[in-house]
Amino acid sequence: MKPFPHAFAATLDTPAPVVDLDIVERNIARLQAACERAGVGNRPHMKTHKARDIARLQLQAGAIGLTCQKLGEAEAMADAGATDLLISYNVLGAAKHARLRALARRVKLAVCCDNSTVADGYAQAMAGAADVLSVFVECDTGRHRCGVPSPQAAADLARHVADLPGLRFDGVLLYPPDGDLVASIDFLAELRKACAGHGLIVRTVCSGGTPNWGRIGSLGENEYRAGTYVYNDRQMVRLGAASLEDCALFVYATVVSHPEPDRVMIDAGSKTLTSDLMGFGDHGLLVDYPEARLHKLAEEHGFVDVSACAHAPGIGEVVRVLPNHACPVSNLFDEVLTMRGDRGAGRMSITARGRVA
Amino acid sequence: MKPFPHAFAATLDTPAPVVDLDIVERNIARLQAACERAGVGNRPHMKTHKARDIARLQLQAGAIGLTCQKLGEAEAMADAGATDLLISYNVLGAAKHARLRALARRVKLAVCCDNSTVADGYAQAMAGAADVLSVFVECDTGRHRCGVPSPQAAADLARHVADLPGLRFDGVLLYPPDGDLVASIDFLAELRKACAGHGLIVRTVCSGGTPNWGRIGSLGENEYRAGTYVYNDRQMVRLGAASLEDCALFVYATVVSHPEPDRVMIDAGSKTLTSDLMGFGDHGLLVDYPEARLHKLAEEHGFVDVSACAHAPGIGEVVRVLPNHACPVSNLFDEVLTMRGDRGAGRMSITARGRVA
Repeated sequence: MKPFPHAFAATLDTPAPVVDLDIVERNIARLQAACERAGVGNRPHMKTHKARDIARLQLQAGAIGLTCQKLGEAEAMADAGATDLLISYNVLGAAKHARLRALARRVKLAVCCDNSTVADGYAQAMAGAADVLSVFVECDTGRHRCGVPSPQAAADLARHVADLPGLRFDGVLLYPPDGDLVASIDFLAELRKACAGHGLIVRTVCSGGTPNWGRIGSLGENEYRAGTYVYNDRQMVRLGAASLEDCALFVYATVVSHPEPDRVMIDAGSKTLTSDLMGFGDHGLLVDYPEARLHKLAEEHGFVDVSACAHAPGIGEVVRVLPNHACPVSNLFDEVLTMRGDRGAGRMSITARGRVA
Repeated sequence: MKPFPHAFAATLDTPAPVVDLDIVERNIARLQAACERAGVGNRPHMKTHKARDIARLQLQAGAIGLTCQKLGEAEAMADAGATDLLISYNVLGAAKHARLRALARRVKLAVCCDNSTVADGYAQAMAGAADVLSVFVECDTGRHRCGVPSPQAAADLARHVADLPGLRFDGVLLYPPDGDLVASIDFLAELRKACAGHGLIVRTVCSGGTPNWGRIGSLGENEYRAGTYVYNDRQMVRLGAASLEDCALFVYATVVSHPEPDRVMIDAGSKTLTSDLMGFGDHGLLVDYPEARLHKLAEEHGFVDVSACAHAPGIGEVVRVLPNHACPVSNLFDEVLTMRGDRGAGRMSITARGRVA
C-alpha cells in the first residue's frame, strides 16, 4: 500500500470515493493480457465502474466490446461512443422493447434470455426492423441465479430463438460458480451436442467473473466478461483474485466523534459504503488501522471498534476504507475523485449511475 | 392496501421507486398534528426523502424548519428555499468549515457537536463573521451512536461552546433508543441541573425518531425531528409505528425469470433495494404475495422463493416490494415516480441525492 496519509487526503471533503488511476490501468492491462494469452475476447462488465472514462480505457487496451447489466447502462455506453454491447440480462416489457429496438439501430447489440417469454418479446421488439438482434441463451451451471438449468433445455431454447424472426442465436452466456469449473465444462460439452442435434452451432461462449480470472479460457469460452477486476475490493482480496495493492477504489472518511474510549465514529455509513457484507462480519477494512473493526453502520455514520488498536485515529483524521464490495459503492455517487501517485488527478463522472431500468 | 395491479403498474419501466402522494400527505398531516397537540415544534428530517417537493409539503403543513444529516443536504434545502435548518451531525474539516460559514449567511442555521474539537472548529469557521452560529450539544441517552455520554460532560461541552466566539449554545439534541424513554428523561433532568450550575439554560431540546412518534413531547422536548414517517417502511410496520396502509414508497419490479419451480427472479437487487436487512431475514416484502420470500439479492437480481405461494407471479408480471428501510432506497435514485389513487402523477426529483459530503 502507498504511504498514508498523503497530502491529497488532507484536502478532501469527506466522505469521498477515490479511485487510483495508476492501479486501474494496471488492472485493465493485466486482464487484457490474460485474455490475449488465452485467445479469448475481453468484454469487460461496466457495472462496477459505470464510467465512460474507464470504459474508454478498457476499449483502448483492446477490449472487443462491453457488457452491461441494464438497458439504461447500455444506452449510456452507446452515448459514450461504445459500438459493441452485450446486455447480460433478460430484457422485457413494452417500454424496454421500444428502447431495445432503438439501441439495436445504433450499435452492434446482443441480449440474453433464459426463457421463451423473454425470447418472444425480443422478436416482437424487432418486428419489421431491418436489423437482426443477437441473442445469447443464459445457462445456469451452478450459481443458481438466472439461466436455463439443463443443456437440453438450453439447446431447446436456442432452437426457439433461432426460429424467431428478427433474432439470431449467437451463443451462450454463463456465470460459473467461483472455484469449481468442472460442472460448467460438462454442461457446455452436452450443450454443444444438444445444439448440434438441433442443427445449431454455439458460435460464442461468454463466461465471466473476476474470481475466476486466473483461469480465463479453461472452459473453452471465447469471450470473457469481468467487472470487479478494474477496482477490486475486500472480497476479491479474500478470494485471492487480487492483493491489497490491486485495490483502486477506497472511500475516504473523517473521524467525527470519539464517544467512548473503544469506539470512534466516521462519516461513512450505509449511504456511502452500502450494507453489503459479502460474508464479512463487518463493513469494510480500514487499511491503515487493520486492527480496527467497522462493526456497524447507520446511514451516515460508521461505528469503529478501536479496542484492539495500539493507536486509534483521532477526531478530524482522514482514514481509508476498502469496501467489502466495490460495485454498489460506485452506484451511490455521481462522480469519484481520481488520483495518481499521491496527488489528486481530478473528478470522473459515474456516467451510468442511476440508469437503473 | 390498494387493489393491485392497477393500470399504472403496467406502464412502468422497472425497477422503479413509486411514491403515493396521498399517503405522503396523510403521513405529514398526522405527524404535524401530533406535534401540535404536544406543543412541540416539528422539524422533519429530510434524509428519508431528500426531495425539495416533499420538504415544501412538510413546511406548508406547519413544520418550523428542517433537519439535515449532511451539510450538502442543507445546502440543497437552502437552494430549495428553506430558511431554518438544523444539521444533526458533527461537521468538521477545512472544506466544510468554509461551506458552513457561507450557509450561515443564507439561512437560520444550527449545527451540533459532541466534542470540543468539533466545537472549536465551528468557532474557527465563524471567526470574524457577522452571524452567530447556533450550536446544539448532542447527547447519548442510550442509542450509543454519537453523543456525549453523561449529563455533566454534556453541560461542560455546552459551557465550552457558550464561551467560544461566534457560537451560541442553543440546546441539546438526542436520539433516544426505540421504546424506553426513562433513561432519556433522567439524562435531561440531570443535564438541566448541570447546565444551571454553569449558568446556562437549555433553550431547546430536540428529540427525534419515527418509532417513538406516538409519544412526542413525553421527554419535555420542544422540537421533534422524524424522517421515515413520511414514507414509512417494513421496519416501521414491524415496530408498530405504521401500518401497511401508511407505507408510501414501494419499488415496482418485474419478474424476469422463473429458473426453478420454486424460484422466480425480479429485476430489483441490491442496487435498487439496498442490502439493509434491519433485522429481517430477507430483503423486502412482496405485499401482493406475502408468502413469497425475497431471500437473496444480487446487484440487479432479486431471488424470490415462491414455494409457499399458492400462485406464483409469472414472467413479465409487475410486483410491488415494500423496502425493509426506505431511507437508503431514496438515496439510490435521481427521481421517484409519483401516483395518486391508481394513477401516475408524474416524477419527483430526489433533489439532495448524491449530496454526500
